[in-house]
Formats: sequence, C-alpha cells, structure tokens
Amino acid sequence: MPRYKLIVEYDGTHIFGWQRQVDTPTGQGFLEKAIEDFCGEVVTVHCAGRTDAGVHATGQVVHFDLVKEWDAFRVMDALNAHLRFTPLSVLHTELVGEDFHARFSAVGRRYVYRIINRRAPLTIDANRAWQVTAPLNVAAMQDAAQILVGTHDFSSFRASECQSKSPVKTLDELRFESNGNEILMHTAARSFLHHQVRNMIGTLVMVGQGKWDKTNLKEALDAKNRSKGGPTAPPDGLYLTHVYY
Amino acid sequence: MPRYKLIVEYDGTHIFGWQRQVDTPTGQGFLEKAIEDFCGEVVTVHCAGRTDAGVHATGQVVHFDLVKEWDAFRVMDALNAHLRFTPLSVLHTELVGEDFHARFSAVGRRYVYRIINRRAPLTIDANRAWQVTAPLNVAAMQDAAQILVGTHDFSSFRASECQSKSPVKTLDELRFESNGNEILMHTAARSFLHHQVRNMIGTLVMVGQGKWDKTNLKEALDAKNRSKGGPTAPPDGLYLTHVYY
Repeated sequence: MPRYKLIVEYDGTHIFGWQRQVDTPTGQGFLEKAIEDFCGEVVTVHCAGRTDAGVHATGQVVHFDLVKEWDAFRVMDALNAHLRFTPLSVLHTELVGEDFHARFSAVGRRYVYRIINRRAPLTIDANRAWQVTAPLNVAAMQDAAQILVGTHDFSSFRASECQSKSPVKTLDELRFESNGNEILMHTAARSFLHHQVRNMIGTLVMVGQGKWDKTNLKEALDAKNRSKGGPTAPPDGLYLTHVYY
Repeated sequence: MPRYKLIVEYDGTHIFGWQRQVDTPTGQGFLEKAIEDFCGEVVTVHCAGRTDAGVHATGQVVHFDLVKEWDAFRVMDALNAHLRFTPLSVLHTELVGEDFHARFSAVGRRYVYRIINRRAPLTIDANRAWQVTAPLNVAAMQDAAQILVGTHDFSSFRASECQSKSPVKTLDELRFESNGNEILMHTAARSFLHHQVRNMIGTLVMVGQGKWDKTNLKEALDAKNRSKGGPTAPPDGLYLTHVYY
C-alpha cells in the first residue's frame, strides 16, 4: 500500500492534544476525518511527536497508508480543502517507502519555546507565547542552559506520566535568542521526555529571574527527581518546528 | 486637567474598527469602558490613527483627560486589569501637557503589512497575515514600490469614503523584507489616506505575481482614479506599529 508522509502545521490553542479522542478536537482526529472525507478510506495517522493540548506545530510529521495511490500534491490540496475550518493545515505531502515511520524513523526533533517578557498582557500573541512579567536575564539563562546540554538522566524534568523507557536523553542544543522583549529558546535532541522542554524552560526562567543560579540548576539535574526541578511552563509558547530523518 | 498619553496594542480580529459604536466591540469602546470602570470618569479617547475592522496595532497612541491626577504606571496596570478579557492592552502610559493631541500632534505614522506566501492555509497566523498563494517576486515589488515613494496625488489608492482634505501625501518609505515565505512591507508617512496602505500592497502584489509591471503601476498612480488602482488587500496583514511626535 502507498505510504504518505505529510508535514503539518497547527495552532494548538483549540486542539486538545494530538491523540484521537471521541468528540474532542485533536490533531489526529482532524486529519483522519479529512482523509476519510477526501477518499473514503479510514486510516490511522502516526505522528513524529505527540504534542499536548495548547502546544503548536509548524513542522509536525505524520504518515499513513492508503489503498489507492494519489498524486502527492493532489492529496495536499484535497486535505487542506477538508481541513479548512480546522486549526490544522498540510504544508507538504510526499510518497515514501513502506519502511518509513513518522515516529520510529525520526532521528531528531527540534522545538522552539517563545516567551514575551513584558508587563502588559498579550493580545496578538495571546496563546502563542508565554508572557513572563518579571524582567529576565537572558545571558544568565543561556549560560546556565549549557549544564543541560549533553547526555543526562533528565528525571528532574520528566512528567510523571512519561512513557519513555529511560530518563536518559542526549540534548544536542539549548540556545537562547532575544529580539526586543521576545525571547526564543531553540532546542534539539534525538527525542525528548514528556514535558521535558516545558520543564526545562520553566526552570531556566527561575534562573532568568535571579531566583536560581547555575549551581541550583546543576543540583536539580543531579537530583534526578521531578520535585527538585522548576515549574512546568505553559503550553502556549511551545512549537514543534522540525523532525529530522 | 491632567492629560494621559497611552501606547496600546490590539488584535484587530475581534475589534470592529477603532471608533465607538453601540453594542459593538471597538478599540475606543473597550478603552473608554475600562477607564470608567477604573476611576468612574466618563471620557472620550482620541487616537492617532483610526484603524478599520480586522487591522491590528502594536503601537497605536491615544490620549484622554481625567479630573484626577494618577501615577502613570498605576493607570497602566489598572487599565490592563479591566481590559483583561478584551483583545486590547496598554503597553505604556505617561502624563503629557495639555497641548499634546494623539492625532493632531503626530508627525508620522508607520505601518507593517505582513504576507505569508504559500499554498497551505494559515493556522497559527490566521487573521494575522494575508495568505497569498501565487509565488511573489519580492525584488520586483521592491523595485516598483519606489514609484510610490515621495509626494504624489494618491487618489488611485484612496477609499471612496476617505475624509482627508487632499489626496496629496508624501510617502517617506516603502520597503520590503522577506524571510522564508513571510514578506513584510514597511511603510512610513506623515499621514495616509483611508485604505492607502491596503490599496498599495494589493496593487504591488499584482506586480509580484507578474500581472503588472512598473509601467502599469506608474500609469495607475498618474490616473488619479481609484478604479485604475489594484484591489484592496485584506485587513488581516496590517499593523499600525509606530506613531511619531
């Protein structure tokens, strides 16, 4: 059966996470419904990284099989027509071999976490960034963040419901960029634990506010205990931007 | 009476323009209600540039008078508390002299118009940019745009309901910037005619699509007739970003 690989984008604000749930708007649910509406086939869509409610994606990757082989470009346009009233859209479609798996073939994921550091509530960026009112020292965050780069047991930044077999992950990149009052955290790894990015940024914001220093962050990491890590940042600022194969 | 100058930001998506209307969400309406809720005073708020429904602002300037003199910073926080469930927020507040007028003291306005040039419908940027599906030649748009810079009769880019005394305006800047599939048009002038920015970008997109060239644009400008200009671009991509005094 022909296998289709898609790159999809979504505004997570009105999506209650990725996974299909009855009578609930989810990324998987919208996409499987659009596929059925387009060609009548009922399929299961597999994604590279399941995102939580409120988390956005500009580069989520999915795959599914259809009995019929369609022109990839036509699949994209047809799905987008059926997705028109949803917060999800298809950026790219291609036919891939049967050995391709959106999740298991992935060798890297990249996320961006977006903070707006200001006192006034967000309007245009509401639900699209985390508003942090206390002034942040981005240089201190960048410096402390390097403690997390490399291979570590990330238990202190792992959600209790995480299903990963091991808490040991290799973080390839953790880098801050600031432009006016907008602060972006860029991070990449082969894979992440559940809530790892949100727990890391939640903790690094404590460093940026001066409540913690590098030593506290190192102690938190070494404790391998979620209760020693900082708070979980809101989903609003998180974007899955790229999956590598 | 103490006069207050505010810089305000709003997501124009759910605001039916700036001007107060009965039972309709407008920028002026939200702000006057918040002021009354905060201090009990019923005032008229004057703005630098009345924006249409759907147009955004990151740097709209307004002024109003109150009988009581408050600390400017306290006014900002109090108003933002009362504006919490609106798409409008106060970025800055200061006390100014009685000779300051948000509209009449302004010596310049700056707008940004944002285009996303791609085939897939917008999700995260829905209502926040104009999606143009046909590929655009940004260099051609930048080149042609220079015809509009300077002092001209802009009748071909003027809404029929425009209340300006003269159609002659001096355009100080019209510059394109592109980053991936995002195209930004930066423009500045002492003042603009009604719909001028949206009509200019609507016409320049025809140049970007190769439907028009520089000569067509020059002929449209010289015609001094709205029917010879290009279409009006949607409000979604327009942002009032700065007012100069």
